[in-house]
Amino acid sequence: MLRIALAQVNATVGDLAGNAEIIVDWTRRAAARGARVVVFPEMALTGYPVEDLALRASFVEASIATVRDVAERLSVEGLGGVAVVVGYLDRRAGLAPRTGLPAGAPLDAAAVLHGGRVVITSAKHHLPNYGVFDEARYFLPGNTLPVFRVPAGDGEAVDVAVAICEDLWQDGGPVAVCHHAGAALLVVPNASPYERGKDDVRLELVQRRAREAGAALAYCNLVGGQDELVFDGDSILVSATGEPLARGPQFEEALIIADLELPSAQAGPGPDSVPDQRDIQPAAGGSLPQSSGDGEPVDAGDGTVIMVERVALPDIPVTAPSASAGEPAAGPFWPRLDDLAEVYAALVLGTADYVRKNGFRTVLLGLSGGIDSALVATIAADALGPEQVNVILMPSKWSSDHSLTDAEDLVKRQGVNARTIAIQEMVEAFRHGLGGDFPLSGLPAENLQSRVRGVINMAVSNNEGPLVLTTGNKSEIATGYSTLYGDSAGGFGPIKDVPKTLVWALSRWRNAESERLGRTPPIPPNSIEKPPSAELAPGQLDTDSLPDYAVLDALLDDYVEKDLGSAELIAAGHDPALVARVIRLVDLAEYKRRQYPPGPKISQKNFGRDRRLPITNRWRESLPE
Amino acid sequence: MLRIALAQVNATVGDLAGNAEIIVDWTRRAAARGARVVVFPEMALTGYPVEDLALRASFVEASIATVRDVAERLSVEGLGGVAVVVGYLDRRAGLAPRTGLPAGAPLDAAAVLHGGRVVITSAKHHLPNYGVFDEARYFLPGNTLPVFRVPAGDGEAVDVAVAICEDLWQDGGPVAVCHHAGAALLVVPNASPYERGKDDVRLELVQRRAREAGAALAYCNLVGGQDELVFDGDSILVSATGEPLARGPQFEEALIIADLELPSAQAGPGPDSVPDQRDIQPAAGGSLPQSSGDGEPVDAGDGTVIMVERVALPDIPVTAPSASAGEPAAGPFWPRLDDLAEVYAALVLGTADYVRKNGFRTVLLGLSGGIDSALVATIAADALGPEQVNVILMPSKWSSDHSLTDAEDLVKRQGVNARTIAIQEMVEAFRHGLGGDFPLSGLPAENLQSRVRGVINMAVSNNEGPLVLTTGNKSEIATGYSTLYGDSAGGFGPIKDVPKTLVWALSRWRNAESERLGRTPPIPPNSIEKPPSAELAPGQLDTDSLPDYAVLDALLDDYVEKDLGSAELIAAGHDPALVARVIRLVDLAEYKRRQYPPGPKISQKNFGRDRRLPITNRWRESLPE
Repeated sequence: MLRIALAQVNATVGDLAGNAEIIVDWTRRAAARGARVVVFPEMALTGYPVEDLALRASFVEASIATVRDVAERLSVEGLGGVAVVVGYLDRRAGLAPRTGLPAGAPLDAAAVLHGGRVVITSAKHHLPNYGVFDEARYFLPGNTLPVFRVPAGDGEAVDVAVAICEDLWQDGGPVAVCHHAGAALLVVPNASPYERGKDDVRLELVQRRAREAGAALAYCNLVGGQDELVFDGDSILVSATGEPLARGPQFEEALIIADLELPSAQAGPGPDSVPDQRDIQPAAGGSLPQSSGDGEPVDAGDGTVIMVERVALPDIPVTAPSASAGEPAAGPFWPRLDDLAEVYAALVLGTADYVRKNGFRTVLLGLSGGIDSALVATIAADALGPEQVNVILMPSKWSSDHSLTDAEDLVKRQGVNARTIAIQEMVEAFRHGLGGDFPLSGLPAENLQSRVRGVINMAVSNNEGPLVLTTGNKSEIATGYSTLYGDSAGGFGPIKDVPKTLVWALSRWRNAESERLGRTPPIPPNSIEKPPSAELAPGQLDTDSLPDYAVLDALLDDYVEKDLGSAELIAAGHDPALVARVIRLVDLAEYKRRQYPPGPKISQKNFGRDRRLPITNRWRESLPE
Repeated sequence: MLRIALAQVNATVGDLAGNAEIIVDWTRRAAARGARVVVFPEMALTGYPVEDLALRASFVEASIATVRDVAERLSVEGLGGVAVVVGYLDRRAGLAPRTGLPAGAPLDAAAVLHGGRVVITSAKHHLPNYGVFDEARYFLPGNTLPVFRVPAGDGEAVDVAVAICEDLWQDGGPVAVCHHAGAALLVVPNASPYERGKDDVRLELVQRRAREAGAALAYCNLVGGQDELVFDGDSILVSATGEPLARGPQFEEALIIADLELPSAQAGPGPDSVPDQRDIQPAAGGSLPQSSGDGEPVDAGDGTVIMVERVALPDIPVTAPSASAGEPAAGPFWPRLDDLAEVYAALVLGTADYVRKNGFRTVLLGLSGGIDSALVATIAADALGPEQVNVILMPSKWSSDHSLTDAEDLVKRQGVNARTIAIQEMVEAFRHGLGGDFPLSGLPAENLQSRVRGVINMAVSNNEGPLVLTTGNKSEIATGYSTLYGDSAGGFGPIKDVPKTLVWALSRWRNAESERLGRTPPIPPNSIEKPPSAELAPGQLDTDSLPDYAVLDALLDDYVEKDLGSAELIAAGHDPALVARVIRLVDLAEYKRRQYPPGPKISQKNFGRDRRLPITNRWRESLPE
């Protein structure tokens, strides 16, 4: 019986000292509950993704030094007997520089810490380079499967293999040789960003790989927001037959502890398949143990050879306070969120972490009375508390009565800090300065109002310190229905990846949640029900410029997320004239999107790292005459 | 004797019809001067880089259809006897989809067009995935070296091999097997973006590869601006011993024609090394000829096997008007630009093409009297003509006398269109609206002035149509010495990658150029000589906030371009206190850079595709106590 802990923690990119503290702290908590193996996420020591920090030698060296420090600290604290698997940034020593390879040859690595030392390391073999991932830019592929034999505390020992994140998603590589290596347990540190519906895919994948490996599988995922990504935790533990044994919470840090009945190493593969059961020797020159090249080569079936490298860990007593082998975790299955709750949680965590990790305490946004800013204010209040949320009501001469009353209603419902600054005076000053040629209506006049509001938000932000949140939704950002430096001015866009129809659905869901709990729904029902309007001209409605949002969002989903061409869009049932119009709007708005701040990715393809189109782009989908 | 033409043309991303027209037109011109082989740049048919357009099936199919159309058009026009080598976007047919590979398996391909048909195709083997390049995201690697035997027009025939761009830069791959394949000439379509000093590296590389291949080498590079990249042409032709035979102009389209004395195919490798001298057969189903797999496999020495695939072209008479075998190009060596002329030409072409290719005719910028906006106005006037350049003088109560007089001096020197809009009225309106708490001085007050100017620029742009140019230099953008949505508001930043010290050097160089030609220097000498100031507060100077620019730029070069850590920076002789301060400024300004518009890359590492750091980033270089 092996007690394992999955520590799905919230690491911060670049904060080596803080992340090291998290690793020591959570190992202490896991040990106190009797765990003999603790698994942390991919790159837990550095945060993920570190992007071009991977290319900076000083950062790589600091990561390597810190992982060694953590091993020592754990031992000093009496935790040397716990096997700790932690992701970090390493480099391949001694590799000759080659043009086109990353300088210093960084590795997306995992270390096993035990007995005060780094006892074995490995590196990710499959490097994702699609969607939001650019790992071929940064990392060399690993080519080993480390297997450590860990005392299970009952005189038995268990062979545990380590693979990293994408290695689970692709065929071949370390996971493919896990069965051959005879490991009873495969542990997999991950940094897998949230997308709607991805959790189901992950569970099936983990179950399939466990069956293929003939090993229990512990999948530990990162938690937290990092710029446009949100890591959702949701760690999974399954048996060798794929039976779910535990599953962590979504979007929250947690320690998932479970007792595994695993075949003992003695009962496992014979000595012949354990050719280099190495004793632990201090690594030369204080460097981390690198692939020795004397493991057992195994054909991974994908054209690569993986070296199985083995190490046996001595039985070191855990002397940390209250190391207990008593009860395992109560409730190893956390309740699961439904689709809308999941999306909403991603937006809240993404916003909270962007604010917190960038050193802000408060946020600011313009509150128009419309649904977009109402939802953003609600997300911010849920993320930070309403007292940290500042809103500015900025009525113009075209504002409807309900825009002010709906905004005031929200302020009352949520208790956020509000002020009102009318924009007419500033708009008039610009009109006067711009002279008689400047039109009183039309796009330039509309944008001017929006930009005056942007300047007010930024002035208050500069003076008082809050981070400005933008309120644009994905439908607007797709079609360019926004003003550059106006409503798009700000540091973070909580609903940037949320189509308008989903904005409404989330708003209704959020209100229903409050009602269910007997609390005041935070969003004014009128903000949800009234027809959407930018209110930059008299009687203006979004539908003057855009089709009905249900029609638009369906088309945008097919064009932006599925990347269908015009012929395919029309074949999918979209109106040809609308296809022509919307494609053109989306294509022409690329320059605006390039200057939009980041916001949490919730879809399969966000505007950001996922979708990278040139601004200068004369490609026009051909359309029927 | 083989007459070859290198057509270094300016293609536009996505404009298949326009680029096809260019290819037909320049082939016609080359044929009229007797060329039997014409080489176009990499991806000349699609423009480069196409980014995520490579993943859109409709675009890939359109590229394939267009390359076939071009072959037919050439034949119809009597140009079927010319062998045309052209880069385009293809895909690998029949490849089973695999997770993590680009959908549709796109290829960065080259086709040989002859006799109205695509006779052979190949794909780039080495895919750059560093710096500004992301080709591992898009392309599958090619694994063939096509060799076509072309009639030289004198009864002889020459074997010509084709490789693409990065294949020349890396060891191994198609270029490594060129010698074995016995080709007399290696032609290499390129899309190699400009960087200072890169031209020298390219020449040495081309010479070395020619000697390795034992073949003459024709390197044809793209010309033109594409978002942040500028392709500089500068095509090179060398003999098999590396002797330069011709070199094209920099930053200009040109047809470089030369007569090559090459070993005849009959005198070359015997029939044994030409195992599949295939006749041209129509490709099945109208698709392009794909790798047949029945070429000659050759070990490329880098762990890959390259198939040498051969095709012999029939002798088809060229019937286009005035096909002449008379004089080859006069002056195959264009005069070379010196360092500052080269940088300046890159800025002008990058700006001109961004404006033109995005459908603008005019530009607009705020003219402060300082050197940055003076240089940007000059670049714009050189790119588009002064009558297409609109400037706005926007004095404030803190503007010095010389700011207006220097700006007016520039207007007079260049004849650009100018207007003056004082900002005090708008600033006062904001102050009034923001209330008594809003400070009269300090950062919020300074940013407010800058943002009022940004709103004015955008209002005029929305009303009258010009593209707004930003005037920030690389030193400011590095340190965050700029106002988000203020001076950084605009669609293109011509000097975004130009450090302040280089801004001065270019300005002096540009004035000297005019003097040399007996013309009025375009930049007011006082704008060059006076101490730099943002003029957002009384008596303000840049040196109040920043170190001397010579000191700062040297440090930024080591930190930003060379990616040195703090210990290395101090070891390199930079002041430790300054290192600490500047590193912090650079790191904290990442969020501003993310919302900055593109501008032409001239350095080894620009702020854009070259340098990709997280915004949320707690890594702080450790510093001595």
